[in-house]
Amino acid sequence: MNGDRGAAGTVASLGELGLDSGETLPALDVAYETYGTLNEDRSNAVLICHALTMDQYAASTHPVTGKPGWWLGMIGPGKPIDTNRAFVICSNVLGSCLGTSGPTSMAPDGAPWAMRFPVITIADMVRAQAKLIDHLGIDRLHAVVGGSMGGMQVLNWDALYPERLDNAVVIASAARHSAQNIAFHEVGRQAIMADPNWNGGDYHRGEAPSAGLAVARMAAHITYLSEAGLTEKFGRRLQDRDAKSFGFDADFQVESYLRHQGIAFVDRFDANSYLYITRAMDYFDLAEAHGGKLAAAFEGTSTRFCVVSFDTDWLYPTSESREIVHALNAAGAEVSFVELSSPFGHDAFLLESPELNRIVAGFLG
Amino acid sequence: MNGDRGAAGTVASLGELGLDSGETLPALDVAYETYGTLNEDRSNAVLICHALTMDQYAASTHPVTGKPGWWLGMIGPGKPIDTNRAFVICSNVLGSCLGTSGPTSMAPDGAPWAMRFPVITIADMVRAQAKLIDHLGIDRLHAVVGGSMGGMQVLNWDALYPERLDNAVVIASAARHSAQNIAFHEVGRQAIMADPNWNGGDYHRGEAPSAGLAVARMAAHITYLSEAGLTEKFGRRLQDRDAKSFGFDADFQVESYLRHQGIAFVDRFDANSYLYITRAMDYFDLAEAHGGKLAAAFEGTSTRFCVVSFDTDWLYPTSESREIVHALNAAGAEVSFVELSSPFGHDAFLLESPELNRIVAGFLG
Repeated sequence: MNGDRGAAGTVASLGELGLDSGETLPALDVAYETYGTLNEDRSNAVLICHALTMDQYAASTHPVTGKPGWWLGMIGPGKPIDTNRAFVICSNVLGSCLGTSGPTSMAPDGAPWAMRFPVITIADMVRAQAKLIDHLGIDRLHAVVGGSMGGMQVLNWDALYPERLDNAVVIASAARHSAQNIAFHEVGRQAIMADPNWNGGDYHRGEAPSAGLAVARMAAHITYLSEAGLTEKFGRRLQDRDAKSFGFDADFQVESYLRHQGIAFVDRFDANSYLYITRAMDYFDLAEAHGGKLAAAFEGTSTRFCVVSFDTDWLYPTSESREIVHALNAAGAEVSFVELSSPFGHDAFLLESPELNRIVAGFLG
Repeated sequence: MNGDRGAAGTVASLGELGLDSGETLPALDVAYETYGTLNEDRSNAVLICHALTMDQYAASTHPVTGKPGWWLGMIGPGKPIDTNRAFVICSNVLGSCLGTSGPTSMAPDGAPWAMRFPVITIADMVRAQAKLIDHLGIDRLHAVVGGSMGGMQVLNWDALYPERLDNAVVIASAARHSAQNIAFHEVGRQAIMADPNWNGGDYHRGEAPSAGLAVARMAAHITYLSEAGLTEKFGRRLQDRDAKSFGFDADFQVESYLRHQGIAFVDRFDANSYLYITRAMDYFDLAEAHGGKLAAAFEGTSTRFCVVSFDTDWLYPTSESREIVHALNAAGAEVSFVELSSPFGHDAFLLESPELNRIVAGFLG
């Protein structure tokens, strides 16, 4: 565990990484956090895969925002992923901006990669994680666990390294990005690229394209919430006023909330990273990579799967989870599937949920 | 019919218009098109109310795009709204940019109103239409017909002037904008305002905020289509290539399509008008304007109603139409309601639909 502990937590330098694009990243850095202790036979490691804009701080304080870990209800002593027993690893994904190699990292010429960074895939993210696991001296993971884009990585882990994991937990995810998923991401990318500060990605010497990134976040954020949840949370209630202003301020609470989501996001995330990671998600289609048959991705696996969806998630609806389950069944894999009821849409996987906790705790045993 | 026939078709100058905001528009212009002939007792007039980005060219060629009328399948000789019998009027809504007063019009000081134009409501749009109907010497309309925002105007027509219409057709609409509806509009407005060319709305001497407006249109356009429709139309098919480019061009057909929608839109629509009309829609809540009871909006009406929804419309889903129907029932109004099946989502009301045609033709008799 000879990683350097710096501003981005612990960073491992892992050498070259071959990519799906055919390009090679010359010097891969992976920033990661760990929780709990690796046991003597190195059999208690659990890898957490994070979602699009999340990070390695699953159960520890984010160094920029000062906010508690994004999955603190799931990971910790006595929690469903119990750090009294498990050694939990969470690494920042390839292409992100919290210490792992991405467009904000320095290229060999000493300037940031920016848009010269190679386009990456979910499989590339998983290959980077596998190099980290090698580096930590771990052959086999007790479990790989993730929600949303994290779930895509979990599926790809089994497709690439079925012999290296015992259990897989896939929450609120999908085996491929739909046309509507791609469409929403494309709106976000166009919003960023429409911001003159984006400047073809070369904004490290000037202002960041914060306005464009904020709009991208706002559009995406709507897809994380259910219509019913938005109605329950905000309805048509006004923000700090008794009557409509007949102007263009944020009259409605939902407007104020969305604007806040956009503004808060740009302080903690990089616009180019947003482009690269959304692209990786749009490229994701596990069946396509296996001759058009999703079941072929899981052929011969001995991994136990747990698949969870939420009934109000319209970003990755239950039907997408069912396709995963059908493919796992067709491949003869062991799989349990639960659709949970929640008013919170896709976001439900990040929120405190006794049902989700019980399912994950029970499955991991 | 002493309107001036100019670049925007026929424009009627209608004097002052009092607005919900308390302000008064000093000189209302309303641009309109008519189809068919007004009969002697002036009893065959049908008013068509258009949607957010549509215009008065419901059944005639758009002067900017050269495209055929947007409801040519519905309006014409022998069509459901039969111009052999009906005198059809379609006017550009207040706040729009095709000849009716809006932010692109000249203020009394000789400069465009831009963001000095007063904030308007759906009711204000209807009041402007009523002034046009007065101007045309018509007391009573045989029918008022509209889809989407057009349907909101139809509902508001009956709430304001129940004695002036015999029949009302409300298609793919709602009696109020939901939190999710507002949220999507707010993303669009923020995209426009984030474009430096917007310049607080004063762009008439410079470049228009086309990039921001295109992003707004792209985000909105996703809400007009169903997930299943997008999958059927585009799926994950690539655009003019055999393999992914590992870049940020429009690899997928759905990306290319959305970009095209954004680019085509900015040629025919004004960014400030988009701000004003989306605001009017977000402010729309017919129940709120009637003591919180939607039925009160229709109390004592003798208008016959026809309400139509589409099963895949998630912008204004069937549940919103049902609320209208329940309120009409509670008010003792005559109403027929149909949910049509269509793969095309909200857009279905603009597309050729034999079922919709049959319903409208049958209802109007």
